Amino acid sequence: MMSLPESSSRPYEECGVFGVWGVPDAAALTALGLHALQHRGQESAGIVSFDGNAFHQHKGLGLVGEVFADGDVMSALPGHVAIGHNRYATAGGTHVRNVQPLYADYAFGGLAVAHNGNLTNAKTLRQALVRRGCIFHSAMDTEVFVHLIAISLYNTVIDRLMDAAKQVKGAYSLITLTPDDGMIGLRDPLGVRPLVLGRMPGYEEDNGGWVLASETCALDIIDAEYVRDVEPGEIVVINADGVKSLKPFGDKGRRFCVFEYIYFARPDSILEGKSVYDARTQIGRELARESAIDADVIVPVPDSGVPSALGYAAESGIPFELGIIRNHYVGRTFIEPTDQIRNLGVRMKHSANRSVLEGRRVVLVDDSIVRGTTSRKIVDMVRAAGAKEVHMRITSPPTKHSCFYGIDTPEESKLLAAQHSLEDMRKAIGVDTLAFVSFDGLYQALGYSDRNDGGRNYCDACFSGEYPITLVDKMGKLVQ
Amino acid sequence: MMSLPESSSRPYEECGVFGVWGVPDAAALTALGLHALQHRGQESAGIVSFDGNAFHQHKGLGLVGEVFADGDVMSALPGHVAIGHNRYATAGGTHVRNVQPLYADYAFGGLAVAHNGNLTNAKTLRQALVRRGCIFHSAMDTEVFVHLIAISLYNTVIDRLMDAAKQVKGAYSLITLTPDDGMIGLRDPLGVRPLVLGRMPGYEEDNGGWVLASETCALDIIDAEYVRDVEPGEIVVINADGVKSLKPFGDKGRRFCVFEYIYFARPDSILEGKSVYDARTQIGRELARESAIDADVIVPVPDSGVPSALGYAAESGIPFELGIIRNHYVGRTFIEPTDQIRNLGVRMKHSANRSVLEGRRVVLVDDSIVRGTTSRKIVDMVRAAGAKEVHMRITSPPTKHSCFYGIDTPEESKLLAAQHSLEDMRKAIGVDTLAFVSFDGLYQALGYSDRNDGGRNYCDACFSGEYPITLVDKMGKLVQ
Amino acid sequence: MMSLPESSSRPYEECGVFGVWGVPDAAALTALGLHALQHRGQESAGIVSFDGNAFHQHKGLGLVGEVFADGDVMSALPGHVAIGHNRYATAGGTHVRNVQPLYADYAFGGLAVAHNGNLTNAKTLRQALVRRGCIFHSAMDTEVFVHLIAISLYNTVIDRLMDAAKQVKGAYSLITLTPDDGMIGLRDPLGVRPLVLGRMPGYEEDNGGWVLASETCALDIIDAEYVRDVEPGEIVVINADGVKSLKPFGDKGRRFCVFEYIYFARPDSILEGKSVYDARTQIGRELARESAIDADVIVPVPDSGVPSALGYAAESGIPFELGIIRNHYVGRTFIEPTDQIRNLGVRMKHSANRSVLEGRRVVLVDDSIVRGTTSRKIVDMVRAAGAKEVHMRITSPPTKHSCFYGIDTPEESKLLAAQHSLEDMRKAIGVDTLAFVSFDGLYQALGYSDRNDGGRNYCDACFSGEYPITLVDKMGKLVQ
Amino acid sequence: MMSLPESSSRPYEECGVFGVWGVPDAAALTALGLHALQHRGQESAGIVSFDGNAFHQHKGLGLVGEVFADGDVMSALPGHVAIGHNRYATAGGTHVRNVQPLYADYAFGGLAVAHNGNLTNAKTLRQALVRRGCIFHSAMDTEVFVHLIAISLYNTVIDRLMDAAKQVKGAYSLITLTPDDGMIGLRDPLGVRPLVLGRMPGYEEDNGGWVLASETCALDIIDAEYVRDVEPGEIVVINADGVKSLKPFGDKGRRFCVFEYIYFARPDSILEGKSVYDARTQIGRELARESAIDADVIVPVPDSGVPSALGYAAESGIPFELGIIRNHYVGRTFIEPTDQIRNLGVRMKHSANRSVLEGRRVVLVDDSIVRGTTSRKIVDMVRAAGAKEVHMRITSPPTKHSCFYGIDTPEESKLLAAQHSLEDMRKAIGVDTLAFVSFDGLYQALGYSDRNDGGRNYCDACFSGEYPITLVDKMGKLVQ
Repeated sequence: MMSLPESSSRPYEECGVFGVWGVPDAAALTALGLHALQHRGQESAGIVSFDGNAFHQHKGLGLVGEVFADGDVMSALPGHVAIGHNRYATAGGTHVRNVQPLYADYAFGGLAVAHNGNLTNAKTLRQALVRRGCIFHSAMDTEVFVHLIAISLYNTVIDRLMDAAKQVKGAYSLITLTPDDGMIGLRDPLGVRPLVLGRMPGYEEDNGGWVLASETCALDIIDAEYVRDVEPGEIVVINADGVKSLKPFGDKGRRFCVFEYIYFARPDSILEGKSVYDARTQIGRELARESAIDADVIVPVPDSGVPSALGYAAESGIPFELGIIRNHYVGRTFIEPTDQIRNLGVRMKHSANRSVLEGRRVVLVDDSIVRGTTSRKIVDMVRAAGAKEVHMRITSPPTKHSCFYGIDTPEESKLLAAQHSLEDMRKAIGVDTLAFVSFDGLYQALGYSDRNDGGRNYCDACFSGEYPITLVDKMGKLVQ
Repeated sequence: MMSLPESSSRPYEECGVFGVWGVPDAAALTALGLHALQHRGQESAGIVSFDGNAFHQHKGLGLVGEVFADGDVMSALPGHVAIGHNRYATAGGTHVRNVQPLYADYAFGGLAVAHNGNLTNAKTLRQALVRRGCIFHSAMDTEVFVHLIAISLYNTVIDRLMDAAKQVKGAYSLITLTPDDGMIGLRDPLGVRPLVLGRMPGYEEDNGGWVLASETCALDIIDAEYVRDVEPGEIVVINADGVKSLKPFGDKGRRFCVFEYIYFARPDSILEGKSVYDARTQIGRELARESAIDADVIVPVPDSGVPSALGYAAESGIPFELGIIRNHYVGRTFIEPTDQIRNLGVRMKHSANRSVLEGRRVVLVDDSIVRGTTSRKIVDMVRAAGAKEVHMRITSPPTKHSCFYGIDTPEESKLLAAQHSLEDMRKAIGVDTLAFVSFDGLYQALGYSDRNDGGRNYCDACFSGEYPITLVDKMGKLVQ
Repeated sequence: MMSLPESSSRPYEECGVFGVWGVPDAAALTALGLHALQHRGQESAGIVSFDGNAFHQHKGLGLVGEVFADGDVMSALPGHVAIGHNRYATAGGTHVRNVQPLYADYAFGGLAVAHNGNLTNAKTLRQALVRRGCIFHSAMDTEVFVHLIAISLYNTVIDRLMDAAKQVKGAYSLITLTPDDGMIGLRDPLGVRPLVLGRMPGYEEDNGGWVLASETCALDIIDAEYVRDVEPGEIVVINADGVKSLKPFGDKGRRFCVFEYIYFARPDSILEGKSVYDARTQIGRELARESAIDADVIVPVPDSGVPSALGYAAESGIPFELGIIRNHYVGRTFIEPTDQIRNLGVRMKHSANRSVLEGRRVVLVDDSIVRGTTSRKIVDMVRAAGAKEVHMRITSPPTKHSCFYGIDTPEESKLLAAQHSLEDMRKAIGVDTLAFVSFDGLYQALGYSDRNDGGRNYCDACFSGEYPITLVDKMGKLVQ
Repeated sequence: MMSLPESSSRPYEECGVFGVWGVPDAAALTALGLHALQHRGQESAGIVSFDGNAFHQHKGLGLVGEVFADGDVMSALPGHVAIGHNRYATAGGTHVRNVQPLYADYAFGGLAVAHNGNLTNAKTLRQALVRRGCIFHSAMDTEVFVHLIAISLYNTVIDRLMDAAKQVKGAYSLITLTPDDGMIGLRDPLGVRPLVLGRMPGYEEDNGGWVLASETCALDIIDAEYVRDVEPGEIVVINADGVKSLKPFGDKGRRFCVFEYIYFARPDSILEGKSVYDARTQIGRELARESAIDADVIVPVPDSGVPSALGYAAESGIPFELGIIRNHYVGRTFIEPTDQIRNLGVRMKHSANRSVLEGRRVVLVDDSIVRGTTSRKIVDMVRAAGAKEVHMRITSPPTKHSCFYGIDTPEESKLLAAQHSLEDMRKAIGVDTLAFVSFDGLYQALGYSDRNDGGRNYCDACFSGEYPITLVDKMGKLVQ
């Protein structure tokens, strides 16, 4: 049952994108790449391939392994080039028509688009396009791109794509597939969202084997080699002539999302030349230096807290132990709990390891505190398992602002740090001491002298409130 | 697995449309109406309702009873107004995105469209629209309407709809649902496809209870009264002010599809003031007069041949018997037969009733011969059951031409009558004698003096090759 | 969601059975045979094949064409011998574990059973078997057979089967499949339920091509020839040695179910040497003689009333017309109607053909009146379409008693005829006159001088209350 | 498509069992308990509840969260008592009829059984039961129990259960649900498989709140307190009278499965009074002492290797790092890889973290080597990521023998350690050094002086070949 118009659809998308050019079984490789990027989106998955004559697509709700489980699906996606997309699972009404890649028939031929990120003027552009007579079929930002390309007065696909890109504002990485111009990758002018270029060895002769992906872990799974990051504002055009680079926006600087290091990216990825695992370990070490505490055991909140907890443990000399066990079988659905059972909720995902916690002074290491409710439940669980003291160490500065650049965060009024002092937060989550890494410490861990130095290269708007890209739609709202 | 572009999708659609305005449970009544029109399309069904604030829709592949089987579906379609659509089942790739009604968000608000028929300049218009930057999401003619409305320079929905209608050519009936202007019905300028106006008693006070439907049988099932046929080229606008009639095309004549009487419509419907059952009985009588034969039993090819066989039997005085039994449980799928079994195919649907046929001289009455293959199988089956003689009587003139106005017919080269003499046809289907009703006889059965008289009021292009509406797309093709 | 124990499961089953021995593609032929017998059961279907080494089975809920739609299913049912089963759709909780054929591993090898009918001592036997330690997995009578065979002290399958058959009481036809003894057919001692033997030509050399089926229409669909009916109480053993006949019960007489002629069997079947279609036509003629009435048109209640209405029309000289149109697209599910819509229920299945009914004196011909509620709705619909008079003629005597032999009938207290006089029934269903065929007339139509003559050969317990087989379970109930 | 008989079905089952008595929402609590035991079986899940009058059940293939995702399912499982079961996923043909708990109607009433483990005389007993006339409906050992209870000559359920238990041989834990005697737990005479007794606080007044579960982690998730382990050979009867203990077998010793500590149980469980996490850490420490090596980093093979790797790291002073990242989104299905892609298989589940491995001397810690193929792939992946040396340390002795007591192991001929010397194994998996923990070291880590001391209390047949329970079915095979 679909209800129109979909006012409830969430505008902010977290996603993974992947594309491969000039290899046999391009769609199967794309499925593997999407699987490696599954942490960036579990709601839906889709692949579009091109076989030299026609486009083929398959999309569905669910994990990559579910959507592409059927062997027939792969054989129905022929071609030496394919692009794919994962989408993040949000609560409520997800529809297949909101699944990417998007495909459109244009006067100049077909085109498929996979897009990660968020446009900050999507609503504004959409209203103008509808007024012009454009008909939208989804709630996705990506469809704004699709229409802007369609109505562009330029002739070539690449010119139309640049024309469209100049009209949108936002943080995004985008891969398109075209019959004549090949596979095209595009990263927003400030490079907020990641996009890397790689190559599978063995296809050099035909100028093939090129790969685009959100993270390097998607190169590793198919044995492709990392070539370089696509630059902020760069367009890479990949076809039989090789890789051509265009920079239509000039140099606007570089503001990569610092939260990719802290939480979102996979630990074995290398982003902007830096290992995510190393970054987290260093932040953990920095945190141990900034907020030392006398304790018996360092316990990560799994799974994202593990590398930083190892760093904290190494720096502090306090042993690292798995005091919280994660249940890996938690799927996207579970029994609707009765009232009696609802308070057991957090235990669906985590359980306390009493033999590690009982009678101990425990340091919990986690990546962030958003609403604070999950932290509170974990702390309660750890105390119930007998911990004598519980200290919380957070590997990011306090999350005080919403992200409008592609990371799902609640509105500011629901962010614990936006509304409370550190002491109030400590009480709210029920710990003996609470500390966040400092801004300077964060950037020192990333190799800069302080935030003045590092902050120019990163977007940390969710911590600082300094938004590097104008929030056009939001401004409109304030005016009204 | 969806393949793009869908070059294989068939442009010719047979469909049923239904709409109801100003009654509680509008969607449930629409489901009943669509059920009564199920013979016009079994491939898919859809309903869009409007509750005063928002549109709601549900669509699916399958019979009405299957698509709307779930009780929750109905409660998710609230509102006092709803429109619905059935679509004909063609072999191969049917997709939910080709299911009607179509819904679109416009600058002026939402609009839903259900459409029966075929545009003869759909391709031409579509190419122009795509060139302009319009993006299509289905293979349906209806979407051409949707875009023409979107880009119209007129202001009101009705003006935009008239603007669109003036640009399209074809045979169609159409129902749209709008928030502000109510429910709008539209019949093509020559009235090739049917559309009737009815009313449910009990809602007069609020100017409610209005119904639009392809056939009167859909009025009967909900106890609505027949008011009148929508006129050729007429637009009826139904809302709280009552029913307003617009005739933007002037009087272009009237060319109702004669094949609706012969085969397509349900026997209990009254179309253009004439009972379909009576028409068929009269054709059967006429055929008995034109092509009398000495025989023992009149046997209809079920189910469409029954009324005309009764007419033939009454006129000839030869007894009517069910010599062929239809299996009503034939669904849309069945076992993939092995070679051994394939020649038993026709028996899935029909079986011979030996006690009626054995040793008898049999007259088979059927509505038409298209490819001739099914007729041959039935004749063989009747002979195998012991019939001494088999005579075939057909209640239409020979089908020599394709329909481009909404009835599914194969291309001319595959029509038996287009390629063969009467005697060759007789041999091909293996009967002792074969006769078709004459053109004059057909129109006399419908109450005219001859074809000169009646033919002016009907489209009989599939028999005569006289196409009353220009075949724009087809002309384009010939030029190339 | 399955609930145990299944007290709600209905003990009375209507079914179709089919088996074929010694042909390639035995399972595909069985699917066709079951399709021809679909009118005997639409709830579920199943096939077990044997390939010389192993048994293979596929079962499912739904029509034969749905359960066996997938091509893979057929290739997974290899072998030259197969048996199959259709089951009647009752409201509510149907489960796959209640789908036949049943298969069991015995100490002497595997055995599959398909069973049509009802045991009158099933409960009594079941209780004794459970007390002995037998564990039941379904609610079906057939499982009683399965356990009786398992615990029999005899050695051979055939002796065990006879041993089991001697312990059960009831009306049934049964087909079993065994690795060593081939396919075995068994009909109850009085031959209440039908079972015919047929043969596919072309397999004589290997003694193959033998077919068992509930009705001859299942022979026709696969081009098999009718050989003979299996005799009451006869066991036929079909294997490479040909067909062996055993009569373990001696001659107990013959009491074939007369309701198979009136309603249940398909009109093109020949049962016990009599054409069902002819029997119905003759009953219609007899009814016209017994209960003549001055009228304008004879209208069958479709579909079962058609042959008898033709007989009535021929005898009376009053024209036969289709005054009621049946909607063939009524499936097993439909929208849950709102209160407003519920009274439109009957129109889902039938609609009035006004052009035949308006202003006419109408004779409706139907096969039986059970609760009377459907008849009332049809009469009301016919009157609403303008009939001047409505006369009802029924081709069976009044249904005053429940069937315990395999035909689904409600309990006696819900049978209109069990509780009301003819005049009260006439008023209840709202007709001008009402008449049932007389007992003598029914049997004269079947070729006997009167009921004394014919009644000895048939079971007419549902009309007469004379039950030829002891109702063991029911007696137990009365005692309690 | 089901094929009979199911010769391919695997006799060895790994499972989790859970039951709760005397609490509201018993089925929902059971679903939570099964979720906590999900690591013991991911193939299927089932729950049977009893509401004082009737049994209710729901079973399905898939994870607990999938099988019980629908809210309606829970409301259809009313009652204050419920038992549940998880089953291990094996490749190929899993059928719903092989899902537990099993339910049977007996002469004395209904009974449900959930069973973890393996009977070593199941085949022998099954043959005897079939010969007696018992009919089996599944391939599960549990059904042998069900029939033995049915045919027992004893009167009470508990006597029948003891009668059955005395006839079976094997390693198992079992929970049954009865209307009159309550919930009954039973552990095999040597206590090979675990079963713990717990209690939810707050239900003491009605003698309620009792819980039985395979592991204590299932108590933790519902906030139940650990009471004690059910003793080897003990029957606990739980009903309104409290907990009654029976020891029908006397004291046969105690041989708990040592592999539960090494691999199978969850690290946060306490089994036989010992923390699984601590046991693993101690084994890791012992291994570091036994097989020290100069290296740069200790890397666990996730997830089971983590605690022992932490122990190894702590003992050796070499840093612990996550050099291998596990992809948690690997489900039970994935794309059928092409030849090109097949060798990338292991990367679906694991990926190398280059920043930890490159240029390092790596010690990999894993729990066991079975066939050796997975180990080889992981080692290759670690080397491809730049490791300078790779040393493998295994926390169990070499796996040289199959388990017949409920742990899935391949036949002996496929076990690497059964066929190869240590040096050959080292070469086969491609490491620089390879070491297994010694028998004495293993038992020292568990708190004993050596294997002579500890081995008497544990079953280590898969390492030692000393099978404490007679392999009746296997013996039969050897004789043949």
